[in-house]
Amino acid sequence: MRATVLYGAGEVRIENVPDPGIEVPTDAIVRVTRASICGSDLWPYKLMAPNERGRVMGHEAVGVVEDVGADVRTVKAGELVVMPFAYSDGTCMFCHDGLQTSCIHGGFFGTEEVAGAQAEAVRIPLADGTLVPLPAGEDDALLASLLTLSDVMGTGHHAAVAARVGPGKAVAVVGDGAVGLCGVIAARRLGAEQIIVLGHHADRIVLAREFGATDVVTERGDEAIERVRELTDRYGVHSALECVGTEQAIQTAIGISRPGGAVGRVGVPHYETIPAAQPTFYDNVTVSGGPAPARAYVEELLPEVLEGRIEPGRVFDRVVPLDKVPDGYRAMNDRQAIKVLVEP
Amino acid sequence: MRATVLYGAGEVRIENVPDPGIEVPTDAIVRVTRASICGSDLWPYKLMAPNERGRVMGHEAVGVVEDVGADVRTVKAGELVVMPFAYSDGTCMFCHDGLQTSCIHGGFFGTEEVAGAQAEAVRIPLADGTLVPLPAGEDDALLASLLTLSDVMGTGHHAAVAARVGPGKAVAVVGDGAVGLCGVIAARRLGAEQIIVLGHHADRIVLAREFGATDVVTERGDEAIERVRELTDRYGVHSALECVGTEQAIQTAIGISRPGGAVGRVGVPHYETIPAAQPTFYDNVTVSGGPAPARAYVEELLPEVLEGRIEPGRVFDRVVPLDKVPDGYRAMNDRQAIKVLVEP
Repeated sequence: MRATVLYGAGEVRIENVPDPGIEVPTDAIVRVTRASICGSDLWPYKLMAPNERGRVMGHEAVGVVEDVGADVRTVKAGELVVMPFAYSDGTCMFCHDGLQTSCIHGGFFGTEEVAGAQAEAVRIPLADGTLVPLPAGEDDALLASLLTLSDVMGTGHHAAVAARVGPGKAVAVVGDGAVGLCGVIAARRLGAEQIIVLGHHADRIVLAREFGATDVVTERGDEAIERVRELTDRYGVHSALECVGTEQAIQTAIGISRPGGAVGRVGVPHYETIPAAQPTFYDNVTVSGGPAPARAYVEELLPEVLEGRIEPGRVFDRVVPLDKVPDGYRAMNDRQAIKVLVEP
Repeated sequence: MRATVLYGAGEVRIENVPDPGIEVPTDAIVRVTRASICGSDLWPYKLMAPNERGRVMGHEAVGVVEDVGADVRTVKAGELVVMPFAYSDGTCMFCHDGLQTSCIHGGFFGTEEVAGAQAEAVRIPLADGTLVPLPAGEDDALLASLLTLSDVMGTGHHAAVAARVGPGKAVAVVGDGAVGLCGVIAARRLGAEQIIVLGHHADRIVLAREFGATDVVTERGDEAIERVRELTDRYGVHSALECVGTEQAIQTAIGISRPGGAVGRVGVPHYETIPAAQPTFYDNVTVSGGPAPARAYVEELLPEVLEGRIEPGRVFDRVVPLDKVPDGYRAMNDRQAIKVLVEP
């Protein structure tokens, strides 16, 4: 089959690789009908050391189950399913607590250990715990939004939950990428009164406003902090969603938080430390977040997608076939596309 | 009147200073019947730069109201009251949210701006928001425990709340000082199933066990982390209460947290940063806490003290008159006393 293989920074190729097969009885094989490129894929795309073996990329997909191992009980061949970006057994203590990204037997797709889903097919370890059947056809108009449940919408939601968004709260979303935009959706549906998006890409800002952003801050760094203070009677926000992962983004998120507020961070951290004292400690600002347990959030978010109450699939502004995935990486890296949908 | 004045590291003296008086109509004057020395007083006692003006120390006290300003409504002369370590107006947004340490018009006792309570009397700004009348006599046997509501018991409770202690949780308390011991009390009353105290002072460990600690770890650093893992099926704890404020203590608190866990830190941070990535981000470990809104917790904790269900006053293992307060600082600094009660 064809798959997207990354061999080092900038070296992304579509190649023929062996078809995946059932390796252990808890596996399933899924034929990918829609996949996508994640903002987090851009980190290895920019920074990965050369590696001859390569890494089959992609951790966001919906597809049709083609085959299941002897022990798989909850999905069967022919079903349309969504694949969260982490696989998990669904039975361990952490899965029970809704933190499937820390599953004792789990792991992540698109790593050097487990092949990813920017491919014609993907092997799903621990299929019973991992996959969720979707009540939709494989060419459903909702497929783009359903696809976001595998990562980006769940991640935006996780940022909002970690930042303790709730009714009446003043919220800021740091970053206008696809995760930030889904963070706006999440903040809106959790009842935020004010949603300030921090970003400076005109097309993304338009979408942010349509998703529910009430204010836009295009400044960066200290100027952005000052602007958010102006918009919040100088108090800062109750909840800051850090959806980028850079030093500047986390400093901004902390800097705009009001006393007693919370930062929910979901951007993969490309910074080393968080300031310990001011304002985190002295203002009782909580710092929370991490990899989103997208699997945990499917039950809550799926009905909203099916009923059309949220439309996270609108973050996709480009569609490519598998052969053009390298163009998709380039477009996202050059900020010419918000998020790229792949139709293998 | 006599008061405790600190002029720099180690330079603590009992001196005659002018009697405090009503300065604005929202003030009250309290004659101090019991005060105490706080672990946080030891930081300036060890580190304060020489200062000719000096600083009247002390932020924990109970006492009798002697005089009130014209605008004071909720307390009157003759009443026994507890003074939380921060004064607050009780009306601003942060006070309403139960974060009186961030009161817009508030501040802290025993600073260079506002004189402290290791003295015969103390001026209380914003008396209506700050003071809480106590249904007890001024020589009540419960006075030591009531005094802890001004800081140390509220601070231990805040650590537990910030660390999300709840029924059935595995909890660790980093530090066996008075705050850590009160953290044990707080964890117990909030329903923790396992309470591991990390400390190595024999007398304090005895008290920790009496307060409800189920396990004791006397190791430090990486050995302590390993020992806590052994005690928790290698998972780590749900809730880690950081009650020291050193680099080693916060690193330990983070290192013993399980995925999805929370660190509640109340030790005044004498460290610069918190690690951003592993395990805080990748394990979804929340870092929370800060100065405790002791005022917010009085209503919850006071009945428990009055009914004898908790006995935080047992952390006091030495009593000194005002003239001997310098000996009290020395004893606490040399770890010869857990916490010193002052009877002016």
